[in-house]
Amino acid sequence: MTSILVLNGPNLNLLGQRQPEVYGRTTLQDVEDMCVASGKDAGLDVICMQSNHEGVMIDAIHAAKGTHGGIVLNAGAYTHTSIALRDAIASVELPVVEVHLSNIHAREAFRHHSHIAPVALGQIAGFGPQGYDLAIQVLAKHLEPKT
Amino acid sequence: MTSILVLNGPNLNLLGQRQPEVYGRTTLQDVEDMCVASGKDAGLDVICMQSNHEGVMIDAIHAAKGTHGGIVLNAGAYTHTSIALRDAIASVELPVVEVHLSNIHAREAFRHHSHIAPVALGQIAGFGPQGYDLAIQVLAKHLEPKT
Amino acid sequence: MTSILVLNGPNLNLLGQRQPEVYGRTTLQDVEDMCVASGKDAGLDVICMQSNHEGVMIDAIHAAKGTHGGIVLNAGAYTHTSIALRDAIASVELPVVEVHLSNIHAREAFRHHSHIAPVALGQIAGFGPQGYDLAIQVLAKHLEPKT
Amino acid sequence: MTSILVLNGPNLNLLGQRQPEVYGRTTLQDVEDMCVASGKDAGLDVICMQSNHEGVMIDAIHAAKGTHGGIVLNAGAYTHTSIALRDAIASVELPVVEVHLSNIHAREAFRHHSHIAPVALGQIAGFGPQGYDLAIQVLAKHLEPKT
Amino acid sequence: MTSILVLNGPNLNLLGQRQPEVYGRTTLQDVEDMCVASGKDAGLDVICMQSNHEGVMIDAIHAAKGTHGGIVLNAGAYTHTSIALRDAIASVELPVVEVHLSNIHAREAFRHHSHIAPVALGQIAGFGPQGYDLAIQVLAKHLEPKT
Amino acid sequence: MTSILVLNGPNLNLLGQRQPEVYGRTTLQDVEDMCVASGKDAGLDVICMQSNHEGVMIDAIHAAKGTHGGIVLNAGAYTHTSIALRDAIASVELPVVEVHLSNIHAREAFRHHSHIAPVALGQIAGFGPQGYDLAIQVLAKHLEPKT
Amino acid sequence: MTSILVLNGPNLNLLGQRQPEVYGRTTLQDVEDMCVASGKDAGLDVICMQSNHEGVMIDAIHAAKGTHGGIVLNAGAYTHTSIALRDAIASVELPVVEVHLSNIHAREAFRHHSHIAPVALGQIAGFGPQGYDLAIQVLAKHLEPKT
Amino acid sequence: MTSILVLNGPNLNLLGQRQPEVYGRTTLQDVEDMCVASGKDAGLDVICMQSNHEGVMIDAIHAAKGTHGGIVLNAGAYTHTSIALRDAIASVELPVVEVHLSNIHAREAFRHHSHIAPVALGQIAGFGPQGYDLAIQVLAKHLEPKT
Amino acid sequence: MTSILVLNGPNLNLLGQRQPEVYGRTTLQDVEDMCVASGKDAGLDVICMQSNHEGVMIDAIHAAKGTHGGIVLNAGAYTHTSIALRDAIASVELPVVEVHLSNIHAREAFRHHSHIAPVALGQIAGFGPQGYDLAIQVLAKHLEPKT
Amino acid sequence: MTSILVLNGPNLNLLGQRQPEVYGRTTLQDVEDMCVASGKDAGLDVICMQSNHEGVMIDAIHAAKGTHGGIVLNAGAYTHTSIALRDAIASVELPVVEVHLSNIHAREAFRHHSHIAPVALGQIAGFGPQGYDLAIQVLAKHLEPKT
Amino acid sequence: MTSILVLNGPNLNLLGQRQPEVYGRTTLQDVEDMCVASGKDAGLDVICMQSNHEGVMIDAIHAAKGTHGGIVLNAGAYTHTSIALRDAIASVELPVVEVHLSNIHAREAFRHHSHIAPVALGQIAGFGPQGYDLAIQVLAKHLEPKT
Amino acid sequence: MTSILVLNGPNLNLLGQRQPEVYGRTTLQDVEDMCVASGKDAGLDVICMQSNHEGVMIDAIHAAKGTHGGIVLNAGAYTHTSIALRDAIASVELPVVEVHLSNIHAREAFRHHSHIAPVALGQIAGFGPQGYDLAIQVLAKHLEPKT
Repeated sequence: MTSILVLNGPNLNLLGQRQPEVYGRTTLQDVEDMCVASGKDAGLDVICMQSNHEGVMIDAIHAAKGTHGGIVLNAGAYTHTSIALRDAIASVELPVVEVHLSNIHAREAFRHHSHIAPVALGQIAGFGPQGYDLAIQVLAKHLEPKT
Repeated sequence: MTSILVLNGPNLNLLGQRQPEVYGRTTLQDVEDMCVASGKDAGLDVICMQSNHEGVMIDAIHAAKGTHGGIVLNAGAYTHTSIALRDAIASVELPVVEVHLSNIHAREAFRHHSHIAPVALGQIAGFGPQGYDLAIQVLAKHLEPKT
Repeated sequence: MTSILVLNGPNLNLLGQRQPEVYGRTTLQDVEDMCVASGKDAGLDVICMQSNHEGVMIDAIHAAKGTHGGIVLNAGAYTHTSIALRDAIASVELPVVEVHLSNIHAREAFRHHSHIAPVALGQIAGFGPQGYDLAIQVLAKHLEPKT
Repeated sequence: MTSILVLNGPNLNLLGQRQPEVYGRTTLQDVEDMCVASGKDAGLDVICMQSNHEGVMIDAIHAAKGTHGGIVLNAGAYTHTSIALRDAIASVELPVVEVHLSNIHAREAFRHHSHIAPVALGQIAGFGPQGYDLAIQVLAKHLEPKT
Repeated sequence: MTSILVLNGPNLNLLGQRQPEVYGRTTLQDVEDMCVASGKDAGLDVICMQSNHEGVMIDAIHAAKGTHGGIVLNAGAYTHTSIALRDAIASVELPVVEVHLSNIHAREAFRHHSHIAPVALGQIAGFGPQGYDLAIQVLAKHLEPKT
Repeated sequence: MTSILVLNGPNLNLLGQRQPEVYGRTTLQDVEDMCVASGKDAGLDVICMQSNHEGVMIDAIHAAKGTHGGIVLNAGAYTHTSIALRDAIASVELPVVEVHLSNIHAREAFRHHSHIAPVALGQIAGFGPQGYDLAIQVLAKHLEPKT
Repeated sequence: MTSILVLNGPNLNLLGQRQPEVYGRTTLQDVEDMCVASGKDAGLDVICMQSNHEGVMIDAIHAAKGTHGGIVLNAGAYTHTSIALRDAIASVELPVVEVHLSNIHAREAFRHHSHIAPVALGQIAGFGPQGYDLAIQVLAKHLEPKT
Repeated sequence: MTSILVLNGPNLNLLGQRQPEVYGRTTLQDVEDMCVASGKDAGLDVICMQSNHEGVMIDAIHAAKGTHGGIVLNAGAYTHTSIALRDAIASVELPVVEVHLSNIHAREAFRHHSHIAPVALGQIAGFGPQGYDLAIQVLAKHLEPKT
Repeated sequence: MTSILVLNGPNLNLLGQRQPEVYGRTTLQDVEDMCVASGKDAGLDVICMQSNHEGVMIDAIHAAKGTHGGIVLNAGAYTHTSIALRDAIASVELPVVEVHLSNIHAREAFRHHSHIAPVALGQIAGFGPQGYDLAIQVLAKHLEPKT
Repeated sequence: MTSILVLNGPNLNLLGQRQPEVYGRTTLQDVEDMCVASGKDAGLDVICMQSNHEGVMIDAIHAAKGTHGGIVLNAGAYTHTSIALRDAIASVELPVVEVHLSNIHAREAFRHHSHIAPVALGQIAGFGPQGYDLAIQVLAKHLEPKT
Repeated sequence: MTSILVLNGPNLNLLGQRQPEVYGRTTLQDVEDMCVASGKDAGLDVICMQSNHEGVMIDAIHAAKGTHGGIVLNAGAYTHTSIALRDAIASVELPVVEVHLSNIHAREAFRHHSHIAPVALGQIAGFGPQGYDLAIQVLAKHLEPKT
Repeated sequence: MTSILVLNGPNLNLLGQRQPEVYGRTTLQDVEDMCVASGKDAGLDVICMQSNHEGVMIDAIHAAKGTHGGIVLNAGAYTHTSIALRDAIASVELPVVEVHLSNIHAREAFRHHSHIAPVALGQIAGFGPQGYDLAIQVLAKHLEPKT
C-alpha cells in the first residue's frame, strides 16, 4: 500500500488551544487520527509529522523521497516566508497538496502569498480539518495508476 | 433535499476545447454531470449554470437566495476583476465555495488575487474537475444540521 | 419639465436586504419613491432604473443623451472597476452626480478610488438614501437657467 | 436651538480671489452668510470660523465638544496631510461632514486621499458653495431626534 | 472567401459623436463600411459587430471559432480591465489584431496597459479609422497560404 | 538639579476623555504629575508642556536648548507627518526619548513610521502612562555623569 | 516628391541573424528595400538609416527637420530607456510613427513602456517587417494635403 | 512568586563581541544577570534563554504557557522575518514585551518593520541593556493584581 | 522701489547653530543682512521674516499680495509636507523663487520632493546663503519691466 | 585665469527652435556668448561645448580634469537616465553646478529625479538662460581662494 | 596552514539529484572534494559543512570565529530571506565570499536580492561548482599576508 | 588559439584615479596586462577594449561574433541602464561573463539590478581586478571542448 506524509508546520501542535475562533477546537491528534482514517478509506498508508523547525521540515521532505508517494503539507506561517521549503519540494519532485485550516485569502495581506503554491499540485484553504481529508482524496486520485 | 447551485463563469463553456494543456479535456457537460452525481452521494440536489456575463452571474447569485442552500462558484477571470460579484455574495449571505480548475497561485501574478475569497468559506484550486467534487463535499458538511 | 435619470448599479436591487448594518434598511423602491418626490420639489421629472449589468448601464447612459438633462449615478462596485462607464459618461457629455450610500473613503482601500469621479460634477458619499436627495438638488441647481 | 460649527481651513479666507476657475467667485463671507441662512432653514444655529493654522483648527474642534452638535469641515489642504486633525475629530466624537468646493477626486492624485474621511459621516465634493448647504442638511437630519 | 470579424467594444457605437477631438468625426457606420471595402481589396469577407456588453463580446469571440479566420478587435475600455476577454481569445486560438483609434500610450496611465496584447498578434494604436484598414491587411497577410 | 522637558503634542490634552479604549482613562494632568514624581525619584526636575500646534512645539524644542538636559517627546500624530519636528530635534542636539501611549506598530499602517525616531535615542510604545516613567529613567541614566 | 526617414536603432543591423524565433529571418537590407518599395507605392521617397548610437540617432532626428516630411522610427531598446530621443522628436515637431517588429506588450514588462509613444502619432507592434509598410502608409496619409 | 521568561534570539549570544559600536560592550551574561536582579526588585522570578534557532524559540514560547506569566522578547533579526514567531505568541496568549538593544527605527529600512509588534503589549528600542530592565518593570506592572 | 519678501521657514532661526556641517556657520541675521544688501544692488526693497509655524507662513504669503512684488521662499521641512503652503502660493499668484541651503536632491529621499516647486518659478538648492543672493537676482530680472 | 567648462547635453543645440513655450527663444549661441560674458565678469575663462552623445559628454568630463576648475552642466534628458555621467563626475572630483532651463520639478514625474544631483554642488532649475549666469557665479565663489 | 569553512545551506545536500537542468549533476560530495583540492592548491585547509537549518548555519558561522580565516558561503534559499545570517556574518567579522551555483540574477525576481551580499566581500553566481574554486582563490588572495 | 574579448565600459579608463577607496589603485592598463597574462595561462588569446560610448560597446559586441569565442564584460554604469547592451549580447549568442570591480549588491540600490545578468553565464562582483582573472578561467572552462 502506498504511503503518504502529512506534514504540519509551526504552531499546529497547539491546534485546538490556539485562537479557536480562527482555527477551531479540534486538536492535532484529532486531525492526524482523521487523516489516518481518510487514508485507509482511500487505500493509502498515512504517516503524520509536525515540527516548528523549518530545517526539520526540509529534512522530512527530503526523507519522503523514495519513502512516500506524496505529501499533504500545511506549512503554517512558513508558507509565506520560506523559499527553502519551496526548493525542498521542487528538489524531491513528489506531488504535494497544500492545505490551510483558515481561508488565508480572507485574512491579513501577508498571508495571501504562498511560496509553496507554485510547486504544489494545488491549494485547499478555509475548510478546517476537513481540508486534510480532501487533500488525501486528491493525492489518492493523483497516485492511482493511469490506465 | 437541500439544493445547491454550481455556477461557472466566463469561458468555462469551452472547457475541454480551451487550452487543454492548462484545463484538461473534460467538457463542461462532463463536469456538470459529475457534480450532479457528487451531489447525489452527498444528499444534495445540484443545479448547474454557466454564463459569460458578469451581470447574469450576479442575477443568478441573487436568485439563489431562498432557493439554494449554498453555491459552488468558479468565477473564471471575473475572480480577479469583479468587486460586484464579491458584493453579490456578501449580499445574499449564502455559503460559497470558490473553485478553480488550475492552480491560480502558480500562474501569472494577476491570477493570484481573488475578489471572491474574502466572502467565501474557502478556496480549492489546482485539482481540475475533482475540485468541484471536493467543494460539494464541503457544502454538504457545512449544511448538515449541527447537533 | 426637465427630466433626469437616477441610475443604480449592481446589487442595489437588494437594498434593505443586503448588509443592513452597512447600507441601512430602506429598499430600492423606497429610494426611488423618495427620488421622484425630491425631483417634484425641485421641478424635475425623475426616471429611475437599476441594473446589475455593466453593458446595460452603458446603454442607459447613451440613451440618456437627448432624453434627460442629467444623471444621478450610483454605480456600485463598478465605480471602482469600470473604465467603460467612465467613457460612456464622457461620451454623452451630460452632468453626472456620483452618489454612494456608504462612506466609501472609510471602507476597504479598493473602494476609495472612483473611475467615475473624474468625469462627474462631484461626489456625495456616506449619507445613505439622503445622498440621492442632495444629488437631485445639485442637478436642479446645475440645470436651472443661468441668468 | 442646536448649534453647529462650520470650520474652514487654510487658504479658504481667499475664496473668490484664489484661482476662481477652480473655486468660483463667491467669497468666504458669502459662504458663511449662506451657511447661517441654511442653518436657519434647518433649525440650526450656525457658527463660522476659518483658520490657516492646523493647531488652531484642532483647538476649535476640541472646543466644539459640549458647545456644538456637529461640525461641517472643509479642512482644505490639511485634508490630505493632517493625521492630527483626524485624531482631533475622533477624540471629540462629534458628527462631522467633510466638504470640498472642488471635486478633489478629479484633480491631482495627492488630493484624492482624505485623512478626515474615515472619521467623518461622509464626504461632499465638487459642488462649490452649495456643498455647505447640503452638509448642513445632513447634520440637521443626523441631529433630529430619533423617534 | 475567408471571412473575418471586426469586433468593436464599449462606447464605439458613439463614434463621431463622442469626444471628437480625441476620436475624430467618422461614425461607426463609416468605419464598418470602410472595413468591408478594405476586406474586399484584401480578399476577405468582413463581418462587423459592436457591443457595450463584455459578455456579449466573449460570446461573439467564442462564436467566431469555426466561422471566421481571424478577428480585428477594438475592445475599448475593456482592453484595460477584462481578463475574461483575454481568456476568450486564448480559448479560441484565432489570430487577433488589436486596434485602438487613439494612441493609448500617450493618454492617461490607466490606458497604457492592455490585457489583450499578450494574446494578440500585435497592436495598432493612434491612427484613427485607418488603423482598421491596416489591421485587415495584417490579417490578410497572416491568413494567406504559406508556400 | 538637571531639568528635562516632557513635551506632549496634538490631542494629548484630551487624554482620559479621548477614545479611552485606546488611550486609557488617565488625564494629562495625572500623567504630568506622575512625570514630576518620576523625575524627583530620578533626581531630575521635570517641566511639562502640551500643545496642539506644530510651530509651538518646534519653538519649545528650540527653547529647551541651554535650559533642559533632555526631552521626553510624545509628538502624537505629528510623529508621522512632521519633518520639521525632526529637524528641530536634530538642530538642538539634545537627547530625546520618543514615547507613545499606544502600540503604534499594532495600529493602522500610517502610524508605524516615525519621523522622530531617527533623531531620538530610542522609542517606547504601548505601555500607556508608564511609558513616560520609563522614558524619564532612560534620560536620567543617559544624563548621569560617565565615570 | 516628399521624402521620409526610416530610422532603425540598436541591434537592428543584426536583423535576420539575431534571435530569429523572435524577430524573423528577414535582414535589415530586405526591410529597407521593402520600405523603399512601399514608399514608391505611396508616393514617398524613403531614406533609410540605422545606428546603434543614441547620439547618432538624435543627430539624425535633428537633421530630418527641413529635410524629411516625417519619420518611421524603430528605436529598439532605446524605446524603453531614452528620454533624450523623446525630447529630440518633440523638438523637431515632425510626425513620427513608432514601429516594433515584435509585440512588445507581450514580452518582458520592461519592454511595455515606450518613451517615444507620447510624442508619436501612434504605435505599430508585433507584425514583423510588415509593420514598416503599414507605418509608411500612415505617414503617406498624414502628409497628403488636407482638402 | 510569578516567573517570566527573557528570551533572546539570533546572534545575541555574541553580545559584547558583535559590532560594539551598535550594540555596546555588555555581554549576554551581563544582561541576563541584570534581568535577574531587575526581576528580584520587581518581585518576579526571571528565567533567561537564548537561541539562534527560530524553531527552538517557538518551542520555548509554547513551553512558557502555564509556566511563566509573561515574556520579554528580543527576537533579533527574526523580528523582521518570522511570522511563525508572531503566531506562536498569538497562540499562547501571554503578555509579551518586545525589546531591541538598538533603535531599529533609526537603522536600515528592513529593520523598521516588526512581525512581533502587533501581538505584543508594546515595544522598547534603542536603550541598550537598560531596555530589558524597563521591559521587566512593564511586565511586573501588567501582572500585578488589579484591585 | 518694488519690495520683495524673503520668507524663511522652520528651524532656520537656528542657522549657524544647527548642524553646521550641513548648513554652514552663517546666522539667519547674516543671511537677512546679505539679502537686504543684494536687494539694494538689484533695486529691490527686501523685507525678511522667519517663522516655525506653517499657519504664520501662510498668513504671510497672503499678506504679501498687494504689498510685495515677489517672494524668496525657503520653506525648510514644510517644503516636503505642506500642500497648504503650495495652495497659498497658487492663491496669491506672486512669483516665488524656492531656495534651499543644502542640496536637497543629494540628501535623504524624503527631501527630494517639493510641494512648492510646481507653483514656483524655479528652485535653487545647495549653495548655502549665496542661494538667496541668486534668488533675489532672479526676482529682480523677473520683475523688471518687459520692453 | 581659471577656466571652467559649460557643458550642454542632448537637444540643447536646438535651443530657441525647440518648444519655445517651455525653453524660450534664446539660441545656444546666445547662451554660450552670455556665459563667456558672465565668466569675464567673474574672472573666469569659459569654454563651451554641446553634444547629443552620452559618451562624448563622459569623455569631455574626463578631459576637464586638470584643464578646468569646474563644470556647469546641463545634461538635458541624460540627467534622468545616465548613471554613467554621475560616475564620470564622481571620478574627476571637480565641482559641478547642475543647471536646467525649465523647472524640472514642475514637469512630468520622470523629470523630477536627477542622477547628477548627488554628485553636484547643487542645482538651479527654472530660470531659463539666467540659470547659467547664476551657476557661473556659484563656481566663481566656490573657486575663489579661501582665506 | 590557515583553514577556511565552506558552508552550504538548504537543499544543497540534494545536489546532483535536485533539478539537474538548473544545478547540474555534480553531487555535494563531489563539490566538497573539489573544494578540498582547490584549497590544497591555494595553501588552505578546507573544512566543509552543510545544513538545512538556519540556526545551525548561524551557530557554524559563530564557531568559525577564531577557528577559520574565512568562509565560502552558499546560503541557498536563505540568501533571500535570512537577515539573521547577515547579522551572524557581520558579528564574526570574517571575510565571506558568497557563491551561487545558478545565475540568481537570471531567475525569478525573488532570487535577485541577497541579504548576504552587503556583508560579504563579493558574489560569484552562475558558474556551477567552479564557483567554489573561484571563491577559494579569492579567499586565498585575501588572506595572504600584505607586504 | 581561441581569442576572447575583455570589454570595459564607461569610466573604467580612469581606473586607479577614480574613487580609489571604492575601486582600488590598479590602472586599466594594469588590468588589461593581467588579463592577457591570465589568458595565456588559460590558453586564450585576450583582446582588450574600453569605451565610454554605449553605441561603441554595442558595435564591439556585434563585431565579436565570428572573431572571439566569448566576452568578459564590465559594462560599468551601463549595466544598470542599458537594455540595448542586453539585446546586443542576446543577438550574438556568445558566452558572456559579467564582472564588477566593486560589490554592486552592497552599494546604492540602483546598482543592484543588472540588465546584463539575464543574458550572461553568470556574475562576479566585488573582488577588484582579480574578478577578471576569475572570469577568464570561467570562459576557458566553458570553451574547452566537451568530451
